[in-house]
Amino acid sequence: MDETRSLPILRITEQDRSEVEDLVVREFPLTVILNNQELVTLLCTPKDLKYLAVGFLASEGLIKSKEEIKSVTIDEKRGVARVDTREGREVAPELISKRLITSGCGGGVAFYRAADAVDGFRVQARTEIAAAEVFALAREFQHRSEVYRATGGVHAAALSNSREMLVFAEDIGRHNAIDKIFGECLLNDISPDGLIAITSGRITSEILLKIARRNVPIVISKSAPTDLAVDLANRLGVTLIGFVRGRRMNVYADGWRVNAPEVLEGKAK
Amino acid sequence: MDETRSLPILRITEQDRSEVEDLVVREFPLTVILNNQELVTLLCTPKDLKYLAVGFLASEGLIKSKEEIKSVTIDEKRGVARVDTREGREVAPELISKRLITSGCGGGVAFYRAADAVDGFRVQARTEIAAAEVFALAREFQHRSEVYRATGGVHAAALSNSREMLVFAEDIGRHNAIDKIFGECLLNDISPDGLIAITSGRITSEILLKIARRNVPIVISKSAPTDLAVDLANRLGVTLIGFVRGRRMNVYADGWRVNAPEVLEGKAK
Repeated sequence: MDETRSLPILRITEQDRSEVEDLVVREFPLTVILNNQELVTLLCTPKDLKYLAVGFLASEGLIKSKEEIKSVTIDEKRGVARVDTREGREVAPELISKRLITSGCGGGVAFYRAADAVDGFRVQARTEIAAAEVFALAREFQHRSEVYRATGGVHAAALSNSREMLVFAEDIGRHNAIDKIFGECLLNDISPDGLIAITSGRITSEILLKIARRNVPIVISKSAPTDLAVDLANRLGVTLIGFVRGRRMNVYADGWRVNAPEVLEGKAK
Repeated sequence: MDETRSLPILRITEQDRSEVEDLVVREFPLTVILNNQELVTLLCTPKDLKYLAVGFLASEGLIKSKEEIKSVTIDEKRGVARVDTREGREVAPELISKRLITSGCGGGVAFYRAADAVDGFRVQARTEIAAAEVFALAREFQHRSEVYRATGGVHAAALSNSREMLVFAEDIGRHNAIDKIFGECLLNDISPDGLIAITSGRITSEILLKIARRNVPIVISKSAPTDLAVDLANRLGVTLIGFVRGRRMNVYADGWRVNAPEVLEGKAK
């Protein structure tokens, strides 16, 4: 399914007013049905919908492994993702509402529960990264964000082992993009353990938590983190790198994983 | 309460690694309690919390007018907003979950219900705006977004009568910023009817719907809209202006409200 749509628009400048065709990013409603139980409608970019459905369910703690899944069917026409598990259990209604409240912008309840749940937990991976690798990853990530460049409205997320991008996803929602990369990991047997996450969006507490729970030790963004995300990163032992722009970055927590920069030869001090 | 917090960070460039203090935008958990019933915890910027709580409840359709409200109390220390209404009614649990699922990024259910509810409804206001006014408003809006400039992590929203900004709010969440401006309108007896909305964020279907339901006929953003937002704008009769950058803009729906640009004298064609 196309991720963008061509629409007639009116382009107005100081001198001129003209009708042109322009690409607009698509917003697709995907209703997620788990074992015949309708859970939520996600507004998303219509790509990698299997990964999104599975990643969303995993983020909500409703599925834990690929083995639990009997089938995943996407009906693009009707905008429905059906996921059936072997156990086929229904989710208790209170649990759904409580859980889902927390998964969007208006979230929070889950954050506290999750933060409680991870109390004492720390990301153990010893992965380290050189400053030059951070800059290179951010550059490559930016390069790959094509929908963003075409239409200016999409978030991206990726996982890398510092040499290459292993998974990459785009979506109009920050949370969806993150869910997609972890959904892909789950379905394709890629362990996120010890990898490096890159996101185009602001790092909030919920995003940080989603990433930390997969034992991902390093998060990189060109955007800013919030103070709550920094607190959580410190508590969970996640290296939080923000404002990666050009050849600069800010490290907000656990800087020990970032190796001291090599002074490049022939460069002025 | 401060909207930013100073934190020690590590700044790394190609040549250098230094410990500095940097401003980070705050993310504050505000639990909204309506008539002793806990509804949701919003993660927000700790400013205009009264407006946020009331605007959120109004967006969810749980309060409709200032007269219904008996009291609004903010406990900043505990992060709680208590709103009591004269009727003091409880919200049915199904209703809460159904409603709140839809209010965040992961939303959608409400969108459909709301879109059904507004079927046949069109924004009636005849407000028009000159292209030069759009550019001027966008410029002034940008100017006022101070937290954004300091820390790079905040959305803003405003309502204007094209001569001045009547309300202005900032928040880490796009939805929260919009809720704040309408909450302020409700508490301060400002009618949004016929005003112009300005937002820093991407215009999605949910944002468009929130604005249209207040009978606001013009929406301006420096960011892009989604195709669903454009469809909704066409259907609801909202003038949707995106990508306002410098002296250019794209009008995605109902361009009749934007007056033809005056060709400025002394300018090259």
